[in-house]
Amino acid sequence: MSGIFITFEGIDGCGKTTQLGMLAALLAAHSIPHIVTREPGGTKIGNKIRQIVLDNSNQNLASTTELLLYAADRAQHVCEELLPALADNKIVLCDRYTDSTVAYQSYGRNLPKNLIDQLNNIATNGLTPDLTLLFDLEVEQAEHRMSSNNSERNKDRLENEQRDFHQRVRQAYLNLAKEFPQRFIIISTAESQENVFQKVCRFVIPKIQTIYPNFSK
Amino acid sequence: MSGIFITFEGIDGCGKTTQLGMLAALLAAHSIPHIVTREPGGTKIGNKIRQIVLDNSNQNLASTTELLLYAADRAQHVCEELLPALADNKIVLCDRYTDSTVAYQSYGRNLPKNLIDQLNNIATNGLTPDLTLLFDLEVEQAEHRMSSNNSERNKDRLENEQRDFHQRVRQAYLNLAKEFPQRFIIISTAESQENVFQKVCRFVIPKIQTIYPNFSK
Repeated sequence: MSGIFITFEGIDGCGKTTQLGMLAALLAAHSIPHIVTREPGGTKIGNKIRQIVLDNSNQNLASTTELLLYAADRAQHVCEELLPALADNKIVLCDRYTDSTVAYQSYGRNLPKNLIDQLNNIATNGLTPDLTLLFDLEVEQAEHRMSSNNSERNKDRLENEQRDFHQRVRQAYLNLAKEFPQRFIIISTAESQENVFQKVCRFVIPKIQTIYPNFSK
Repeated sequence: MSGIFITFEGIDGCGKTTQLGMLAALLAAHSIPHIVTREPGGTKIGNKIRQIVLDNSNQNLASTTELLLYAADRAQHVCEELLPALADNKIVLCDRYTDSTVAYQSYGRNLPKNLIDQLNNIATNGLTPDLTLLFDLEVEQAEHRMSSNNSERNKDRLENEQRDFHQRVRQAYLNLAKEFPQRFIIISTAESQENVFQKVCRFVIPKIQTIYPNFSK
């Protein structure tokens, strides 16, 4: 693997997808080879799997089924997108990865952590991010941003979950950052997008320069 | 769990589905509470999962993805169909279960057996059949039956696999029967359907009588 694998994590409404887009635009402007992807749903097969998970009509989806479907999506994503891009020296920007599953399923829904770790390991075949950017924000602020930005937006099943669920998820992310300090960077998004992006660049640019030495903002 | 869980296993064309239908008819005629189900695809969610696995267009489905999708289907099937029926004292007749995955994926496709065992364990949460009927037939005879019975049938991706694949699968089933003699019964289907059904009844009826003592053929 010669590329760099960067994951973007945080609760819904934390601003991670906006920051991912800004970084992608910067890479594109400097002709740095990269891909933008997300979980769940980065591949054609993954999109079909995602339809099953998010379909509001599947109210009786068992929690183990959901975990296994996320793992299946991830396995396909790793084989079809991530590994080929990394082998091709690309920068991979990925919106959510294994940490989301630990935070949402284990801490959020109280599913067994050892089961989730086992499935993550099977699905990724051991592929770990080089850098994980955790965009941290108070749950109330994230909710406020989501409701003002997306008043018309269809709420899917996951977004209808309760506030204390998102609070557990936020705390789970902070715990993961402590557990894996070598790859996690915590970035508060309680500031302007431009200020947050300055911080993103401070951590990401030196990393990218390890394989593309001429790159700068 | 107060019902009885009976699985029907064997290579494609071995006659297991016909025998399952004959047993279901007998149970219905005697008003014995039962359900008829199959893997993959026993539930509404499972059918959607199965469409992804069997879709001929998904030629790039990664082998780990396929395993995880089968496991997801199984987890849903166990939670939604098998456990409630068994809790309700029903006889469960299931066309394929975990042994199919071991035979087809591990022995047939050479995927790691410990991975498959791990996924079967996650998906079933430990639910094991009370009785597994293995319908055994030479691969050549099974192929002959399939081609004469189903000349118009659409071949799906699995059915297009090679003959030596089916030979490995058949041998895998025989190995499993040796490994789990307490639940496996091997029944040769190289005879008339009626003769085979006599043998099925010889093993199944005493088992069913343990909870429905008045049942006989």
